[in-house]
Amino acid sequence: MQDYLQSEFRRQSDARRAPAYQHLRRTLQHAIENGELTAGQALPGERELGKLLDLSRVTVRKAIAGLVGDGLLVQRQGAGTFVAERIVKSFSRLTSFTDDLRARGLDPRSTFLERGLGEVTPEEAMALNLSPGAAVIRYYRLRTADGVALALERTVVPAAVIGDPDLVENSLYEAFAKLGIRPTRALQRLRAIAFDAEQARLMNLPEGAPGLFIERRTFLDDGRVVEFTRSFYRGDAYDFVAELQSEPTP
Amino acid sequence: MQDYLQSEFRRQSDARRAPAYQHLRRTLQHAIENGELTAGQALPGERELGKLLDLSRVTVRKAIAGLVGDGLLVQRQGAGTFVAERIVKSFSRLTSFTDDLRARGLDPRSTFLERGLGEVTPEEAMALNLSPGAAVIRYYRLRTADGVALALERTVVPAAVIGDPDLVENSLYEAFAKLGIRPTRALQRLRAIAFDAEQARLMNLPEGAPGLFIERRTFLDDGRVVEFTRSFYRGDAYDFVAELQSEPTP
Repeated sequence: MQDYLQSEFRRQSDARRAPAYQHLRRTLQHAIENGELTAGQALPGERELGKLLDLSRVTVRKAIAGLVGDGLLVQRQGAGTFVAERIVKSFSRLTSFTDDLRARGLDPRSTFLERGLGEVTPEEAMALNLSPGAAVIRYYRLRTADGVALALERTVVPAAVIGDPDLVENSLYEAFAKLGIRPTRALQRLRAIAFDAEQARLMNLPEGAPGLFIERRTFLDDGRVVEFTRSFYRGDAYDFVAELQSEPTP
Repeated sequence: MQDYLQSEFRRQSDARRAPAYQHLRRTLQHAIENGELTAGQALPGERELGKLLDLSRVTVRKAIAGLVGDGLLVQRQGAGTFVAERIVKSFSRLTSFTDDLRARGLDPRSTFLERGLGEVTPEEAMALNLSPGAAVIRYYRLRTADGVALALERTVVPAAVIGDPDLVENSLYEAFAKLGIRPTRALQRLRAIAFDAEQARLMNLPEGAPGLFIERRTFLDDGRVVEFTRSFYRGDAYDFVAELQSEPTP
């Protein structure tokens, strides 16, 4: 790792004129994104890093503080600085945001930015297989874990499925379970986005920060669509994993 | 759509002081990213858009030209301006970059930025289940379709599998097929990234443009790992889709 940091730092310094702490911050961020530094790995101490890269301790501390603020590094009292663990989510299993995070010992919460009953839009009608004029319940939630914003999520559910908007307190899937509704499959679509100004403000991220946009339609066994959700996940917190099979030979 | 464009344009204009064409550009980009404008959809004509938003035709033309340059819109002679079709790739089936694009009538090409034989790094040895000191073949390719850069891809293959680096001309999977090697499954991991300065230069994108980082390990039936690939896909060209199943009830 030390060799990588030295050569990458030199490359970043050559590339542009900016304060040294920004070079270091970029170097470390790059190392994390490319897997040179892996989740849970300990960083060299401030003194050691400074010596390695010929930087003052103040500079090193400033770069590290920035990355702690970004959620890429975590500092543990007395133990040092570590690469933050990313949340690994399956892209082939249908799991609940709330369950995923509880399983990691985190405290998932939803802040409702919007919640209410309305009439289906043409796009929602297409996604949910509803007729024009049908009633839907809409939620717009900021989803957090241990106080850190992880996603913005817009969910639309047919009013015929859930009845009362207030049945969803935190988790949609918990409300479904209480009503005896068991979603069995979903179709999901994912793309890379940059957070716009309003989303960034809600998520406490810089505008343009990388994120994942995920659109999901969830089905019951009988084919009814019970959920149409569009989520914006912060890019620096989530990995999606899946096992792929080869196409059956024709 | 007209209503959406009007209200969104007003919101963007209120949000900041910038030239009108930038507001319009942002408004249209936002509409595409959020699915208000969908792939293949025709945009209103320049004159109609100008009237709708109270903008000059020059302003409208400038905004549209910017988005055509970004690859988000395409102009067809005599027919008008359309939202560019995104490339939809499965996140549950193992398919080849080359085959995916040929199936869409595009001309996929690889430019080799690096190609050669080397000694496995500790990280590669872990990923490929190789012993320290083993020989590997490395490729770093810029992948294009009809001349547009779509991805940067670093691939490592055990030298024992493929022998000669020059066997891969364009597609790794074609080379595998010639050698009678049939990968049957892969483990894939995906995250959101922002392109760094060097990647952006190679891809002809602005620095910080959104992208997807995908890491893939591909296996033969007998469990041997034949490929360790790290790809950076441009975010505005690719959608990944998958069908999800619910967890089996315990």
